[in-house]
Amino acid sequence: MIKASKKIYLDYASTTPTDPKVLGAMLPYFSNKFGNTVSFHKRGADAMEAVENAREVVARFINAKPSEIIFTSSATESNNLALKGIAWANAFKGKHIIISSIEHDCVLNAAGWLKTQGFEITELPVDKKGFVLLKDLKNSIRKDTILVSIIHGNNEIGTIQDIRAIGKICRKNNIYFHTDAAQSFGKIPIDVIKDYIDLLTASSHKIYGPLGAALLYKRSGVPITPLLHGGGHEQNLRSSTVNLPAVIGFAKAVEICSKNKMETEKLTKLRDKLIRGIIKKIPDTKLNGDPKQRLQNNVNITFSFVEGESLLLELNMAGIYVSTGSACSSNSLSPSHVLMALGKNPEDAHGSIRFSLGRPTKESDIDYVLLVLPQIVKRLRKLSPFRKNNRV
Amino acid sequence: MIKASKKIYLDYASTTPTDPKVLGAMLPYFSNKFGNTVSFHKRGADAMEAVENAREVVARFINAKPSEIIFTSSATESNNLALKGIAWANAFKGKHIIISSIEHDCVLNAAGWLKTQGFEITELPVDKKGFVLLKDLKNSIRKDTILVSIIHGNNEIGTIQDIRAIGKICRKNNIYFHTDAAQSFGKIPIDVIKDYIDLLTASSHKIYGPLGAALLYKRSGVPITPLLHGGGHEQNLRSSTVNLPAVIGFAKAVEICSKNKMETEKLTKLRDKLIRGIIKKIPDTKLNGDPKQRLQNNVNITFSFVEGESLLLELNMAGIYVSTGSACSSNSLSPSHVLMALGKNPEDAHGSIRFSLGRPTKESDIDYVLLVLPQIVKRLRKLSPFRKNNRV
Repeated sequence: MIKASKKIYLDYASTTPTDPKVLGAMLPYFSNKFGNTVSFHKRGADAMEAVENAREVVARFINAKPSEIIFTSSATESNNLALKGIAWANAFKGKHIIISSIEHDCVLNAAGWLKTQGFEITELPVDKKGFVLLKDLKNSIRKDTILVSIIHGNNEIGTIQDIRAIGKICRKNNIYFHTDAAQSFGKIPIDVIKDYIDLLTASSHKIYGPLGAALLYKRSGVPITPLLHGGGHEQNLRSSTVNLPAVIGFAKAVEICSKNKMETEKLTKLRDKLIRGIIKKIPDTKLNGDPKQRLQNNVNITFSFVEGESLLLELNMAGIYVSTGSACSSNSLSPSHVLMALGKNPEDAHGSIRFSLGRPTKESDIDYVLLVLPQIVKRLRKLSPFRKNNRV
Repeated sequence: MIKASKKIYLDYASTTPTDPKVLGAMLPYFSNKFGNTVSFHKRGADAMEAVENAREVVARFINAKPSEIIFTSSATESNNLALKGIAWANAFKGKHIIISSIEHDCVLNAAGWLKTQGFEITELPVDKKGFVLLKDLKNSIRKDTILVSIIHGNNEIGTIQDIRAIGKICRKNNIYFHTDAAQSFGKIPIDVIKDYIDLLTASSHKIYGPLGAALLYKRSGVPITPLLHGGGHEQNLRSSTVNLPAVIGFAKAVEICSKNKMETEKLTKLRDKLIRGIIKKIPDTKLNGDPKQRLQNNVNITFSFVEGESLLLELNMAGIYVSTGSACSSNSLSPSHVLMALGKNPEDAHGSIRFSLGRPTKESDIDYVLLVLPQIVKRLRKLSPFRKNNRV
């Protein structure tokens, strides 16, 4: 067993630390500048002004109007609001919804619940790289289709869908298009107009902003039913006292992303170094997802003849923090639905690990992983019931 | 017009500043100790441990088991989860729900939406002090009643219901009892066992904890359907990456409340001084709610022949920050449904102001209000179209 000499967090797709500049921007709003945006006095008005400034920042970032941004508490909430909100508000038009088979659990399970409420869900298959095929989408559209929800950058395998082409098809067919951009927002440029997006989910804590803030972009005129009824905040679409410090932090995190053009280049380089290194140094490994059309920080590798959980435990002991599948489903014993959708067998799906790089990741971190990982895999394969005869 | 010489915030029922000790407890979890509770590595395990410790603190505070606490993002979310969650999970048993006519907007509007989904809602009237009558509750119970939801301490008029008596009736009739304790939690002792509570809503930002954390207590075995489907957090009842810093802050705020036994005494004294002072110094004023069975920090007064909004604006100019009705509905032009339920006419409902005191409130703040308020009311009444002939 390799003992940790370093601590290397490579699970930034799961959550990120809050940027000190973000925290600095938030701090005054906990005390000196605290307030409820709907209070009818100076403190309330100041809070409202701060929230509206934040709304403008995040709206501009995706070429939306401020009035099209609904602040929520999380990407899970935004995705639930998009799916259920569209379903409830448009059921009179039809009850058919299309998603992909590699959605995040929150889209998948929200859709699953809608099934119990009389909606019909079509799950589009993906190819071996994780792409939805446009012809499949076109073929699945029906007269009663009200919504297409397809993830932008996949959280597990990093594959980036051509959302512009998908959006165009939806717009042409008068069907609302939602994309879960929790992993891509802040990493890949998004233009809700040029990309024909009707609804989009983005999250703060994936981009070095605080937990507790996320958004649902909703194009003007698209009708949705709220998930949270109450005092009428967020244009009556998401009642709840607005989480002032979190929203301020979210906007600051977006501002930092928008100025940080070098990050993509740096992370892409480190990502590719890690991929190449693993494939070269460790036999019977395979990159999952597309090598090019992938999130700048995502590395997902199948290590054949290894149990992913064991690999994860050993890496943990070595101070390397990674995930199998998405963080959210990593406590479940069933193989990742995303990897299964790529056509993997359950053993290979179980033997897959996601490394997700982040802003603080250094080249020396990658070097350390490439030093430690091959030894761990080699040892585990010796113990593995899955091992190929003499190969490993 | 009186210019502000001081800034006196008396809107603590709307939101509170985060206690510096609370913020101090939260800070490490933004950066050094950040993590996703469901991540399968040390950082995830540490985050999980911290959340479970916090869960224990808040559970103990109301005599619940930790496993009965669901962390949510806000009281609005908790209330929506309670009402819709019980409705969806128990519709097969019946579709009748009982609420009071003085619920917070989020209970009222969640119930209103359930009406559009085929549920029947009975709104219990209240007496002139704002109390639900037990005989009304008993009479409204039907064979198909699945839930009674009655607010504990009313957010506008401060009236505290006898939830133990209400809970007892519900338990006897095998009906789930939910109480919105957003305003009372941390101020009035609550024992979910002795009070026969099945579901209870409590919020962090009303007790000097951060925004973004709240809870729904759900008694073991009570079935609810989640509002947020996804990765399976919070025992599959509220998916979403747990807001680690906010939950830590919430628990710290609860801890401070539990040690701060003197606060009730201090606030009750200041509250009663303000009530007595207003009634004595300003003619044609009336206290709304019960003088004794009321939240320690709530003062709600009807100023006859005055428009509440004007009074609020003048107080704002004088540096005194208060609300008409609840903060959440203060941007609406319709008279408060709570005050109307007490039997007020629309003019008097419009002429009512809520002063809510808080931990930082000093006696000199009350003295200042009692100095400034009579002059403002006098002047406004001179201009008022509602004024009685020569009386004012």
